[in-house]
Amino acid sequence: MKEKGRTARADLDAVLAAGFVCHLGVVVDGAPVVVPTVYGAAEDTLYFHGSVAARSLTSAPGQTVCVTVTHVDGIVLARSLFEHSVNYRSAMIYGVPRPVTDPEETLAGLRLITEQAQPGQWDYARRPSRKELAATTLLALSLEEASVKLRTGPPDDGDSPDAALGLWAGVVPVRLVRGAPVPDPALAPDIPLPHHLG
Amino acid sequence: MKEKGRTARADLDAVLAAGFVCHLGVVVDGAPVVVPTVYGAAEDTLYFHGSVAARSLTSAPGQTVCVTVTHVDGIVLARSLFEHSVNYRSAMIYGVPRPVTDPEETLAGLRLITEQAQPGQWDYARRPSRKELAATTLLALSLEEASVKLRTGPPDDGDSPDAALGLWAGVVPVRLVRGAPVPDPALAPDIPLPHHLG
Repeated sequence: MKEKGRTARADLDAVLAAGFVCHLGVVVDGAPVVVPTVYGAAEDTLYFHGSVAARSLTSAPGQTVCVTVTHVDGIVLARSLFEHSVNYRSAMIYGVPRPVTDPEETLAGLRLITEQAQPGQWDYARRPSRKELAATTLLALSLEEASVKLRTGPPDDGDSPDAALGLWAGVVPVRLVRGAPVPDPALAPDIPLPHHLG
Repeated sequence: MKEKGRTARADLDAVLAAGFVCHLGVVVDGAPVVVPTVYGAAEDTLYFHGSVAARSLTSAPGQTVCVTVTHVDGIVLARSLFEHSVNYRSAMIYGVPRPVTDPEETLAGLRLITEQAQPGQWDYARRPSRKELAATTLLALSLEEASVKLRTGPPDDGDSPDAALGLWAGVVPVRLVRGAPVPDPALAPDIPLPHHLG
C-alpha cells in the first residue's frame, strides 16, 4: 500500500505550505459547487477568499464547506493499466467557515494569503486601505477537522506476474515551476525588480 | 476586465485538454466533499474515477456533482495588495453522473483517462482483464452544462494612481512541468524506455 491517509499535524502543515491555490466546495441549492481560490494558513486557521462561499453563507449560515489542497507529484505508469495511478498529496479541511469582519484580522489573513503565494510581497506592495479592507471577502476555517491523503513511490505491480511482461514501468515526475517574473508592459523602465523576486 | 467567464465550447475543450486531474465535488449527508481524481474527456462526455461519487450515488441516486479542472498560470503582483490576483483557467462541469457499466464503454473511458495523463500509454501497457474492468468504478458526466473562467495578463493597476508609487509590478509565471521518467527500482535493467516516453 503506497496510498495512505495521514492524520499527523505535520503532514497537514506540509501540504498546506507547498501551495497557494485550493478548491473550495460549498452546497448551493442542494448541489455542490467547487471553485478554485487562494488561501493562507496560520497555526490553527485557514484563511481564504470566497465570494461564492460568502454568498452561500449569507443564504445558509452555519453551512459546512470543504477546502481541498492538492499537489500532483507524478504519473505512475505500471505494467498493467489497472495499476496506473497518480502520486499526489492532498489535504481536505472541513468545517463551518467564519466571515472575517475585524479589520486587523482581515489584514493578518490577507498577509498570510499574499505571503503564501509570493514571500516578501506583503512588505513591498501598497497595503490595503480601510475601504479596500471593507471590500475584501475573507473567510476563516478551523484546521481542526482535516485529513491528508497521499501516494508516493513506484507502481504496485513490480512483484506481480505482470513484471514478466517485460514492459517499462516507473513514474513521470510532475511539478509546479515558477518562471522568471514578467514585467507589466505598463511598468516604467527604470523600476527595478525587487530583491524578493530576484 | 482581465477576468472573464467564457461559454464557447472551444474554451472548455482547451481547459480539459491541458490537464488530467480534476476536483470532484459531491454532497454527502448534506455537506460538500471535494476530492481530486483523474479524468478523460470525449466529445460530449467527461469520464472520471470516483469511488466517493459512486458511494454517494448509491446512497442518493440522481444527485448532482460538480467537476472542476483548474490550471494556475501565474501570480499577478500588482502595485497594491488589493489588486493582487492569480492568472488561471478553470472549467466547471455540473450534472448528474451516470455509472458506466458496459465493459466496452468502461474500456473506452479508461483509454481516455490514460491517454489524457500519458499519451501512448494505452497501446503499451497491459489492457484490463474482464475482472479488472468489473472492479473499475467509472462515471460519465455530460459536458452540456459547463462554464469556463479565466484570468490572463498583467495586473489591473497599471493606469491607476498607484502606478506613481514606483513599485515593480508584473506576473510570476507558473506551470506544471514533466520531468524525465524514473524507472521502477524493481524494473529489470534490460527493459528500455518506450518511444512514447522518450
